[in-house]
Amino acid sequence: MNFSSKILENAVNEVSQLPGIGKRTALRLVLHLLKQPASQTHQLAAGLTKLVDEIKFCEKCHNISDVEVCEICANRSRNSEIICVVEDVRDVMAIENTSQFKGLYHVLGGKISPIEGVGPHNLTIDSLVTKVKLGMVKEVIFALSSTIEGDTTIFYIFRQLEALNIKTSTIARGIAVGDELQYADEVTLGRSIVNRIPFEKSL
Amino acid sequence: MNFSSKILENAVNEVSQLPGIGKRTALRLVLHLLKQPASQTHQLAAGLTKLVDEIKFCEKCHNISDVEVCEICANRSRNSEIICVVEDVRDVMAIENTSQFKGLYHVLGGKISPIEGVGPHNLTIDSLVTKVKLGMVKEVIFALSSTIEGDTTIFYIFRQLEALNIKTSTIARGIAVGDELQYADEVTLGRSIVNRIPFEKSL
Repeated sequence: MNFSSKILENAVNEVSQLPGIGKRTALRLVLHLLKQPASQTHQLAAGLTKLVDEIKFCEKCHNISDVEVCEICANRSRNSEIICVVEDVRDVMAIENTSQFKGLYHVLGGKISPIEGVGPHNLTIDSLVTKVKLGMVKEVIFALSSTIEGDTTIFYIFRQLEALNIKTSTIARGIAVGDELQYADEVTLGRSIVNRIPFEKSL
Repeated sequence: MNFSSKILENAVNEVSQLPGIGKRTALRLVLHLLKQPASQTHQLAAGLTKLVDEIKFCEKCHNISDVEVCEICANRSRNSEIICVVEDVRDVMAIENTSQFKGLYHVLGGKISPIEGVGPHNLTIDSLVTKVKLGMVKEVIFALSSTIEGDTTIFYIFRQLEALNIKTSTIARGIAVGDELQYADEVTLGRSIVNRIPFEKSL
């Protein structure tokens, strides 16, 4: 692109470094900002700067937090004996929205993925194992994506927790609520038959 | 969404004010920034702040510029007797990329669009008419989108230039190079027949 302004070009280049945003979209966003009051862009810039400068990761569960220990870990009414292992903060938000889980979380920060160069040591697995070894945890629930990377990560962690005599579980895989059976893939359908549950419990 | 952090929530809200970016995409972008070195976000914030604080609009053609008079208007080797009227800076960039136009531009800053609340007085039409009245302009080329808004804008400007005894023209509408005839819409195809050009000129 042939920019008439270095300042514009620089802003477009910065915005187009965001994932999924190409040069054209970046230009559209930047021109939009130019049409808005300057205060909107100042607030955007301040919000992002504050984010990277002031955000903390909870020292217990590694979730994103404004303080040293996040709201969930600091909440004494939650059951600290059950730990739900998730990939990132979006999964915590999704599970919290269900209101079905009252234990604590452990945020791994990703999945083991050799292709993306993410090994076990890039994740907070050691911290999880240390936490479990302290003996206060009774059950670890794995709530990771049902992909090869997710399954690999679960297996890697499971091998380290095996000897520690705690309960481990994974969230149920099956037909999503509202889905039609005929469109379900065979692996999911097969698993949902093998792992069937008593009807009276499904109500 | 149920955020664990006010700082995160604020950053997501700011980013989701951009056009075409919802809360989920904003969260994805913000979490991406958190995984990158903080310096990237600092540069992004600085780039955007600099943009809205320091960018200028060329006092002659109203194009985005770093200085009072843009590079194109300041270039004495360009023909200042021909003015190409466009909607915004993206059109200037697109036409410059063709290397087919050596005159000057006039950037309207939009199209007349009652639905979006854009009237003639939100655009730089008065400045264009004033420029033409000074008598140095010989031809005005309208290079606006081929839409109702574009055609309305052209007609509105044309009515004001009519009496000034200058040449006005619009860019040719027709079948795009590389397009198959059978897929062209009938209005475009019809116009391309009416406005046919001598074969030897099309080479």
